[in-house]
Parts: sequence; structure tokens; C-alpha cells
Amino acid sequence: MRTTSVGVFKIATRGPGDVSGLMGLIASRAIDPASILAILGKTEGNGGVNDFTREYAVAALCTALAPKLGLTPEEVEQRIAFVMSGGTEGVLSPHITVFTRQQLETPPAGISGKRLSIGMAQTRDFLPEELGRSAQIAETAKAVKAAMADAGITDAADVHFVQIKCPLLTSERVEEASSRGHKAVTISAYSSMAYSRGASALGVAVALGEVAADAKDEDVLRRYDLFSKVASTSSGIELMHNVVIVLGNSESSASEFEIGHAVMNDAIDAAAVIEALSSVGLGAQGLGAQGLGAQAKAGRALVNVLAKAEASPDGTVRGCRHTMLEDTDISSTRHARAAVGGLIAGLAGTGAVYVSGGAEHQGPAGGGPVAVIARLP
Amino acid sequence: MRTTSVGVFKIATRGPGDVSGLMGLIASRAIDPASILAILGKTEGNGGVNDFTREYAVAALCTALAPKLGLTPEEVEQRIAFVMSGGTEGVLSPHITVFTRQQLETPPAGISGKRLSIGMAQTRDFLPEELGRSAQIAETAKAVKAAMADAGITDAADVHFVQIKCPLLTSERVEEASSRGHKAVTISAYSSMAYSRGASALGVAVALGEVAADAKDEDVLRRYDLFSKVASTSSGIELMHNVVIVLGNSESSASEFEIGHAVMNDAIDAAAVIEALSSVGLGAQGLGAQGLGAQAKAGRALVNVLAKAEASPDGTVRGCRHTMLEDTDISSTRHARAAVGGLIAGLAGTGAVYVSGGAEHQGPAGGGPVAVIARLP
Amino acid sequence: MRTTSVGVFKIATRGPGDVSGLMGLIASRAIDPASILAILGKTEGNGGVNDFTREYAVAALCTALAPKLGLTPEEVEQRIAFVMSGGTEGVLSPHITVFTRQQLETPPAGISGKRLSIGMAQTRDFLPEELGRSAQIAETAKAVKAAMADAGITDAADVHFVQIKCPLLTSERVEEASSRGHKAVTISAYSSMAYSRGASALGVAVALGEVAADAKDEDVLRRYDLFSKVASTSSGIELMHNVVIVLGNSESSASEFEIGHAVMNDAIDAAAVIEALSSVGLGAQGLGAQGLGAQAKAGRALVNVLAKAEASPDGTVRGCRHTMLEDTDISSTRHARAAVGGLIAGLAGTGAVYVSGGAEHQGPAGGGPVAVIARLP
Amino acid sequence: MRTTSVGVFKIATRGPGDVSGLMGLIASRAIDPASILAILGKTEGNGGVNDFTREYAVAALCTALAPKLGLTPEEVEQRIAFVMSGGTEGVLSPHITVFTRQQLETPPAGISGKRLSIGMAQTRDFLPEELGRSAQIAETAKAVKAAMADAGITDAADVHFVQIKCPLLTSERVEEASSRGHKAVTISAYSSMAYSRGASALGVAVALGEVAADAKDEDVLRRYDLFSKVASTSSGIELMHNVVIVLGNSESSASEFEIGHAVMNDAIDAAAVIEALSSVGLGAQGLGAQGLGAQAKAGRALVNVLAKAEASPDGTVRGCRHTMLEDTDISSTRHARAAVGGLIAGLAGTGAVYVSGGAEHQGPAGGGPVAVIARLP
Repeated sequence: MRTTSVGVFKIATRGPGDVSGLMGLIASRAIDPASILAILGKTEGNGGVNDFTREYAVAALCTALAPKLGLTPEEVEQRIAFVMSGGTEGVLSPHITVFTRQQLETPPAGISGKRLSIGMAQTRDFLPEELGRSAQIAETAKAVKAAMADAGITDAADVHFVQIKCPLLTSERVEEASSRGHKAVTISAYSSMAYSRGASALGVAVALGEVAADAKDEDVLRRYDLFSKVASTSSGIELMHNVVIVLGNSESSASEFEIGHAVMNDAIDAAAVIEALSSVGLGAQGLGAQGLGAQAKAGRALVNVLAKAEASPDGTVRGCRHTMLEDTDISSTRHARAAVGGLIAGLAGTGAVYVSGGAEHQGPAGGGPVAVIARLP
Repeated sequence: MRTTSVGVFKIATRGPGDVSGLMGLIASRAIDPASILAILGKTEGNGGVNDFTREYAVAALCTALAPKLGLTPEEVEQRIAFVMSGGTEGVLSPHITVFTRQQLETPPAGISGKRLSIGMAQTRDFLPEELGRSAQIAETAKAVKAAMADAGITDAADVHFVQIKCPLLTSERVEEASSRGHKAVTISAYSSMAYSRGASALGVAVALGEVAADAKDEDVLRRYDLFSKVASTSSGIELMHNVVIVLGNSESSASEFEIGHAVMNDAIDAAAVIEALSSVGLGAQGLGAQGLGAQAKAGRALVNVLAKAEASPDGTVRGCRHTMLEDTDISSTRHARAAVGGLIAGLAGTGAVYVSGGAEHQGPAGGGPVAVIARLP
Repeated sequence: MRTTSVGVFKIATRGPGDVSGLMGLIASRAIDPASILAILGKTEGNGGVNDFTREYAVAALCTALAPKLGLTPEEVEQRIAFVMSGGTEGVLSPHITVFTRQQLETPPAGISGKRLSIGMAQTRDFLPEELGRSAQIAETAKAVKAAMADAGITDAADVHFVQIKCPLLTSERVEEASSRGHKAVTISAYSSMAYSRGASALGVAVALGEVAADAKDEDVLRRYDLFSKVASTSSGIELMHNVVIVLGNSESSASEFEIGHAVMNDAIDAAAVIEALSSVGLGAQGLGAQGLGAQAKAGRALVNVLAKAEASPDGTVRGCRHTMLEDTDISSTRHARAAVGGLIAGLAGTGAVYVSGGAEHQGPAGGGPVAVIARLP
Repeated sequence: MRTTSVGVFKIATRGPGDVSGLMGLIASRAIDPASILAILGKTEGNGGVNDFTREYAVAALCTALAPKLGLTPEEVEQRIAFVMSGGTEGVLSPHITVFTRQQLETPPAGISGKRLSIGMAQTRDFLPEELGRSAQIAETAKAVKAAMADAGITDAADVHFVQIKCPLLTSERVEEASSRGHKAVTISAYSSMAYSRGASALGVAVALGEVAADAKDEDVLRRYDLFSKVASTSSGIELMHNVVIVLGNSESSASEFEIGHAVMNDAIDAAAVIEALSSVGLGAQGLGAQGLGAQAKAGRALVNVLAKAEASPDGTVRGCRHTMLEDTDISSTRHARAAVGGLIAGLAGTGAVYVSGGAEHQGPAGGGPVAVIARLP
């Protein structure tokens, strides 16, 4: 029986502090603020340690939503899952994607197949020395299973995107662990982002049975043959626990949206992007009658593409040397987002797509998951 | 009668000073050093004013080729046209493309259609105050016509790519003009690169009849509706004149290569990239049997894609805001190369493509020319 | 008669959104929120067009101060002058400086000499095409005179620092002017920051009689021999008018602080920094008994140094070539802040100093004003 | 008996490939090319992994010197020690310092005291897995002692600067170690530069008795209380062994130069810079009659300042938070060079000073050695 309705709204922003689009949709009653479960955003910072556009965007949204929800800004931040991915390099366009969920009193008729469903859960707070290690993996796996249950999804095959927000290490956090006699996995804040993303992704892989349950400390950022095909993890300075959002399709959902995914094997895997679009009945842009356009199902519309990008750690893409990892001027995550964003935007026909950097253990080394949400007619 | 043979060799480099690939092909007699007419390279600097990888690569090539040609390094630099485009952002892979031309004593039989031809010319030295203004436009137009004649091309429709190397302004050059009572078009070295590229591109457009012959000072970087569909211009600190290389197809060529082009209307114009590939009988990667792959002509192979990229000056790509022009951390040319490079690499199946930044008056605003060279069976 | 009391509080911040230091001082009654006139801050963004740490800091402060003042955040932003200078390169340390002013009912006894005074004023909103031109100069000059009157200063020699917050151009603003048939001074957002800072500084120079009253459009960013010795201007995206804050010494002030200044003739002018410290009875750090330390007046303490830095436009510092203007990876304003910040921090003994970038017409070309505030015993 | 004569020439460069200054001095016989022992340079790249200005400068110098020495460029590179430190942030000015050494047939009369002496040595090639570990420490210590002997220095107190050029790890080198079953100290090229610099500096400290001889793998980049007061190490991609250059004063030298040093305890330690200047009889600029100027010995002139800079690893400078380590846009080495360069240039009166980044175990954490070479009257 279809008991929940899940909505998805993609809203362009004019800056990290711009909440006018969302407020407009609330004012026009297109969105009931009480139904907002999660907000994924692309903000225009550097995506690195000192990217304050993420926390600024969250602060602006919490302040704006607080009176609508009768809560303080701090309470809003606890209630809604905010995942801001910094970095809109190249053609990527800043925007937020708002996910809503409501219980249905009367199950609608005439809906067939599984529809978009969303579930959430979170881990306990981690100690600094647990980041990037097996404790973070195991706790994340537990949370993924809890989020699947929350989404009404029982089959791992119905999970198409697992977004995780995870912590990073700062000088203070490393110091704190050290003062208790514990050594953090790295003393570099920037490196810690990779460790935290990697361990969180392995947690997804464990939960979904993509890898064995005994992933170890030394697998993180080393065993790149271990990965999840649907994990997307972003680290941020503002929390010490993992927030897990599961997106999939469920019989229990009466949503007018559907989600599917594919896996990019490398950063130039156009075929995977086309496959992901095709998995929800969409054709790639620009291919015309000769291309996959013909396969697109009538009336379906693209809502968003959710993807992860990274510089392949072996220094090459399909046999050609890349220079992303040796560049001291631009971090490799910015390079990778720009390039993969260019490809996806070209095939999707829009730069307002969610391409996030740092795909450690998210898809194969140098590749990453790519999910597509379509609106059905 | 086919009187010339034009060769094209794409060679990966391990660094800006790496000449081993070219030296190997000379040692194995695959390339006769005396036949080298031009070398286009992608080097791994920032592509900006202080990108020394370009001059380093030229210096290394000249030093290595000198003994092979019985010339001094300085004489090599005068004899061969070196165009180094800095910036291998994202998946772009450093490489050089060597163009050779030889006179044929015996015209080969069995060749049909027009084949790849190359011609060169250069302008006089410019005064600093002429850069980015009508003098540069008019002199460039003259040189383009001379280069077409050198290539044996009479019909402008057979011209598919015009690569120009043009000067930029430095503090010293601005000062020198000022000392004679003349004001340079800008005092910023970085801005001067755009002015010089723009005026040079308008020179191509004038020569090919794409715009009226009376392009004016005030059109440069203002009238973006005036552009060439085949111009590609790169500015560098090492010269004060324009070097013009015309690539097209000619009945006089017995080359085993063919060139075609299309125009990207914006930075995510996948259709144009596919059209350019298709123009020389190639299919896009990853589209499989359902896509254009079916249209690919048997036995043809991709040699290189030559394209220009830029951040659209109106701040949007297909209606979505981009952030390239407001980014103080990464120059917009780097953003644009990364994004367009990602799209082209995805469709071409390789990151070893020549995507150059700064497409002022080269294609429509925010877009740019995209040419493809294929080897015929 | 001493009728006002001016306070200065320098507060370290842990991030652009950190208001805890100020809130603590309000909670402990060290600061009466109603007395806050202006807040100058150094935030840790890039100081360029896309530096959102400035507006984030202002938003956080307004939100935090609103309940203390019984105002909305928007009203707080109108009431208090916030000047956030982005960029804490090198040893510079993020902090805010809070200026308070209160009327005194009973003039205190025993105060001799002129003491720190502060006054404010603002211009009308500018049209985009007025930025960087004579209209901005003239309106700014009027506002400086109004701010001097507000500060109780009649003699221009008593003005030691004039901080101005001024607008910049965005693509939209240039477009808007263009749609009305007007051409903005530049189409580059980044360049417009320099034009706006330059014209504003010339406005100060006009007001204080440092240059003739008829400064012209073409003087801006060209006639670097025209400058103010006390102007400090910062451009930001969030406003379209100039906000002027005059800092000087006045007989009408009963403040326990004093301000003085000197002018750095170039970016390595250690003597000027020492002179500025000395002007308020302070010695430079590290010089010990052999140096100026001997001249320091007993009991005086450094509060803050306020300075402007820029890359000298002729490409040299005291005869040696610098590379700040040719660097495509790091903007010259960041280079200059880092270097001048290093020198001032070394002599002041702390990195928590206000060094702001972009000193066009603020001090001689390549130099800039340096003011020091000391607390008297 | 004074048997050697050591010369020092500081030469400004107009770009990394500019050799004209040195060639001019050779042409005018001011420098005998056969006497050149070492060339230290500041080149204008980013100082990071992909800074090709260093190898470009070396290539240009070798090519230019080859005919003067009757050697191939490769042989020149073996004969002369080239140490190029990338990064001329802020006011730092690109230049090279040429050290010459000649045997004297007739010991000159009238020279008193120890004078500038220089010695060199090198280690064996390292395996990738040895970098940043005890093997690199021990081998370096041996080479330092050999270089001291070469310089005619027996007392460690006479050693004032030990410049080391050391390797870094690339993806290929890590891979190569891995293929033999060995794990490199880090997989990040950028991080490996710090490890290699740190281990090399500890090698100096061991050789000079500044730390115990049993420095361990785990001390590197961890035990920052272990350091050398005179070590300066720079890593580069072009070699796999360490090159050691010892600079000190010796009775055996008849040089007209003298060297001294001090240690900066943090990045704003003006007193240490003044102490270093004073140690060779020079006064700091700008202090005038009131300052150390009075102590300067008549006729002495500054030749160069040689210093190391780094962002203090605890995130603060003298109690104030800095943001260098959290900046994803600009590497901390660039920040540190800019700031320390600004301070030293201010006190030395010139930006043409050798300030090199990455001071791991070179001076206390956050500080670094500062040496000064003066020409005697």
C-alpha cells in the first residue's frame, strides 16, 4: 500500500545566502515546510576545508525556515538534513534540491511500479581518531540499514543513491585526540576529508553487501577495488557524526518521481551517464533522432543528476596522463568536478546538476556513481 | 594534381620539457625532421600570463631539434610554428601534435576527395598599442589569406581551423607605448590576452568573409555577435607578431587525413561535438549501436579534436548561472577548459585533445569552434 | 568640552560566522550593544568578487545583534556600519574591531590632548555607470566632510584613517547600465573593484585637500600621483552606495584611545610602520633596548594597525621586479596583503592586524596608509 | 693558510629562462665559469609539485653554460649544484645567487678572521620508500660532514647555512616501491615534499650535533622539537639523491664575504632577522639613527638573506590563529613565503632575498633559520 509521497524540487540560487527561491515556493504553497526532509545543495565555494559557503547556506536556510516551522534556527538544523557540496566549477550551476516526504491518508490509485522513496538516519558522534577507520565504517553501515527501513526499502537493489554527510579533522580535533593519547589517521585537514569520505562510502558498501562486512582500517584509501556503486559522501566541518540519506524506489511510495543509476568507470564514461539517464526513461541531449533520444519515454522530464567525481589515483584516465593530482594551484577535487560536470551537463542539457567531488570508494577508482531522478508524466 | 603530403602525429608528453616521444619518432624515421611545419601543444601550466610551461616546451623542442636540422635553437624557432596552449585542467592530457608537409614528386593514385592541407603565414610585428585593435585585425586578415594560398585552399568553406599565436601586453610593453604617447588597450597583462585573442579572431572572420571587412577597435570584446567559426587564437609573451596556421582540406593534398568542424553554441553543446566527429566519419564514444557509432565509417580513426572554450560572458549557460567569471581563485579560462575538455573527452573517448581557452570572437559568445582530424583507412 | 566617549575592541574570530567573542563582551557588559557604531573585520575569504565570508560575517553579526537591539537583522545592518575586508593571507589573523560611541553626560576631568573620535556618513546609491568615475569621487568627498563633522573634527590634519565601503560591478549591473544605453567603466567584476576603490579614495583626497577638487574620470587608475594618505577603501557586492567612516583625534572625545598614521611609500617600507607606531607612543617589536622600544611611552598598548596594501603597478618594489601582477593563480591583492601583513605583523608583534588589499589612490603607487590605534594608560 | 677564494654574485632574472645576467658577468670576466660551484635561485613558479620553473631555469642555465665550460648541458648539471626554490610570492623578487670557489696560489695578506667558505657533497640515490625516513636522515648526515670537510670547516659552530636539494615522490615512484612490496611514507606527491625536506633537515641536525644520532622514522613530521638551526631543504622532482651545500666561515678562506645566522622562533620574529643582519655587521633598514643602523659596521653591504618559512603546524602565530593550513586555494608554503618574505624584505630593504618554503625540522615549528651574507669593505 502506498503510504508516503515524496517530492523533489530543484531551485536555482543566486548566492550561498539566497533563500528566495525556496521561500517563494513555500509562500505559493508548492512546498509545505513541515514536509521538508532533506536539502542537497551545490554551493559556489572551493569545496575544501575553508569553504564557508556550505555553512553559510545552511545558516541562511535555517534562519529563513525557522519562523515557518515554529522552531529556532538550531532546531531546524537538527530536523532537516542539510548536505551542501561546495564547488560549482566550470558549467556547474549553484542550486538546492529539496526533498519532501508526507504520509498519505488515502493511497492514490493508478500508480504502477516502484517510485522514489527517501529515508534518513544518523550515527553517533565520532571521536577524532575514529574518522577514516573501521569504527566509522561499521557505524555508517548500521545507519544505512536504518535509513533503508525508514525509506520502506528492503531490497538493496532498490537503493540508487546514498548521500552521506561526514566530519573532517581540524587542528583542534587532532590535538584533542592527541591529548588523550590517540593518533588521528592524518594531521592534515584536507587529507582527513578524503579519509572520512572513504570510510563512510565503505560503510555503505558493507550495508548493501557490495563488500564483505569486515572492512579494515588499512583498506581505507588503499584498497580501491572495494567500493559502493551508490555511495556519495561529503565531508564538512560542522558535524562530528554521519548523516545518511537513502534514495531509492519503493512500492510504498506514491511519488511522481523515479530514480535510477549507473556507475562511471572513469571520468570520461559518457556511456554510463547515458545509461543512467536511460534507466529512468530519459535520453541524452544532443543525440537527436539518431541517438538515445529515440528511447526516451514520452513525457518524462529530468529533475537532477547526482554524481561523484574524482581524479583517478593512478594518474591516468583511459591510458592518458592527467595532471590533477600534481597541481598545487587547484585541488584535484575541483579539477574532477569541473570535468565530470562538463560531461554530465552536456549530456543532461543543463549545468544545474549535483556533481560532488572526492569519490573515494564511491565507484571504482577514478569513476563514481551517477544517479538520475526523473519526473513521470 | 596532388602535390603535397601532410602528416599529423599526436605524441603524449611526460612534462613540458619532455621531447622523448618526438625524438623517438625521428629516430625511427617515422618523422623526417625537415618536414615539420608546425607543432601544437597542450602544456600543463595555468594558461595565464605566468605560464612558463609554454616557453619551456618550445625551448626544449628547439634545443632537441636543432642538431637534427643543422640549425641553432633560435633558427628552429623561426622555421617551425610552435603554438603551445597552456592548461590541461581536469581530464585533459598533455601532448603535442606535430604537423608535417612534404612535396610529392609522384602524385599518388587512388585518392579521392579533398584531404588535409596546412598553410602558414605571419604578420609584421605589432606595436603594443596596436594589440586588440583594428590594426591587429587587418594585418591578421592579410596573413590568413596568405596562409590559405600556402595551403592550396581557395574556398573559405574548405578552411576548418585557423590557429593563431598572438602577443600579449606586459608592464614593460604598456610602458613603452606610454613613453611614446600611446595608450595601450588595457594595462592588465591578463586582460590583454583576451584583447589580442579577440582581435586576431576577428581578423580570421574578416579574411573568411564571416564578418564585414571594417571591424573596428570598439568591436573587440564588445560585439560578440561578430565571430569566426574556425578561429582559434592563443596569446603568449614570447612574440610581438601573429603566426597564422590554416588547416583545411584541399584537392592538392595526398594526405591520409581529413579535417572537419562544427560550432559549439555553448559550453555544453554535445550535439556540436558529435556533429564535428561525424563530419569526418567518426562516431561519438559510448553511444554504442544505438548512437552515432552506427554512422561511423569503417576504418577511420580519431587523431585529435581541436576546440576553443570560454566562460559565456553573460554569466549563464543555457539559462543556468555559472560562477566562472566571478571566481578570484581560478581564472575563467581554466574553468572553461576543464568543463569543455570533460565533455569532448567523454565523447571522443580520450583526454588527449587540444582544448584551448579564451574563445573571444571564436564561435558565438560562450561557445567555440570544434574541429576533428581523422585518419582515413 | 569632551562630550563623547569612543571605545575600540579587537576580538578574535574562529570563523566568519563566529560571533561568540562579541556576544561574550555584551553578556559581560563590557560592550553596550546600543553604542556600537561600526565593525571592521578581517574575514578569511579570498577578498575577491566571490568572497562570501564577508556577507556571511555580516549576516551572522546582524542575526546575533538583532535581539540585543530589539531590531530585525535588516535594521541592524542599516544601523551599524559593517566593513568586512576579506583575505587573511600569511600570518594575518581573522578578527573584528568594534567601535562604540556614547554621549557623555558628565565630561571627565584630567584628560589632555586630542583623543580618538569616529564619525560616519554615506552617499546616495550610485548607478552602475557612475562607479569608478567622477560622480563617485564627488559624492564620496561630500560624505567624508559629513563624517568629519559627525566626528567633531574640523582640521583635516586630525583625520588619520578614512575607511570606505564601496560597491562593485556584477554582470547584472553592467547589463542594467547597458540596457539604459550607458557603458560601465569595465565589464569585469574583478576590475570594477579596483575602479570603485580608486574613485572612493580620490573622494577622500578631494575632501581633505590632498588633491584638487576637479578629479576626473580619466584620473582613476591612471594618475597614481593623485592619492590620499589616509584613505582605505574596500569594495563589496552587497551595497550600491559608499559608507564612510572617519577615524581621527578630537578635543571633543574623552576616549582612552589615540590614533596616528604614516604612509608606506612602498610595500617594504618598515620605517613608515615604525613611524606610525611611534606616532601614538608605541615601539616596534623586536628592536629591544637598541631600537625604538626605548621611545615607547610607558603604559601604552597596541590595539590595532589599519593598513592598505597593493602590488605596485610598475611591477617593481624598490627597483626589484615583483611577480604579483603577472600571477594567474593568486590575485595580486592576496599577494600584497600577505607580504605587507608579514611586515606589519613582525613589527607590531601580532598577526591580528587589519591589512586590506587594493590600495589604488590610497597612498602612493605600491604603498599605502598605515594607521595605529593605541590605548593610553 | 688561506687557500681558497669564495665569491657570491646575486643576479636578478627576468624570467625562469633568463640567463642574460650571468652570461653578461661571464662575458665581462667578472665570473670565471669554471669557478662556479653552486647556483641558488628563486624562480617564480608555485613552489609545488608542478612547478616547472625550477627545471626550466636549470635547463636554461645548463644550456647556456655548456659551451663556456666545454661540456654538454647534462655534464654541467652534474658539475654545478643547482638549487632552485620556486615561489616568489608577494614582494619576493626572482634572482639567482652564484657561488664560486677558486684555489689561491698566493695566500693574500691582511685578511683577518674567518671568511665565507662553501663545501659540497651528495648522497647515494634513495629508493622511493627511503624518502622521509631514517635512511634519508643517516645518509644526509654523512654528506653534511663530507661537505663541511670540503669547505674547510671543522667546528659545527662555523656552519651558518646548509642548503639541501632532495627528492620527492611521484605516482610512478610510489608505484615502483609498491611493485617491490614496499610502502612509501605517503602516496601524495605534495606531502612527500614535506617528508623529504623534514628527513633531510634532521640529517643536518644529526651531523651538527643538534639532535641525537638515532633520529627515527616516526620522528619525521611529528617530533617538531627536533630541528636544525641552519638547515634549508628544498625538494624537487628532478633527482633521487640529496645534494648538500654547506655555507660557513673558515680560516682557510680569503673571501671578501662573511656569513652569519639567527633562528626565527616564529614567522613574525623581527628580532631574529635583525640579529642575523647584525651578526655580519649590518643594520636593519628603516630604523635610522635610532635603530640598529647605528650598529652597522661601516662599508659592509648586504649580499643576500637566506631563510626558510613555514606555516606553524599548530595553527597559530604567537597566540593568534592563522588560516594557512586550512586554505584549499593557496598552499601553506606560498602563504608562508609571502609573509616571511615581506618581513625580511622590509628589514633588509630589498625583495631580492632567498626565502624558501617548507621549514619542517628547519628551525622550531613555525619558525626557521635566517642567514645573511655580507660583503666586507
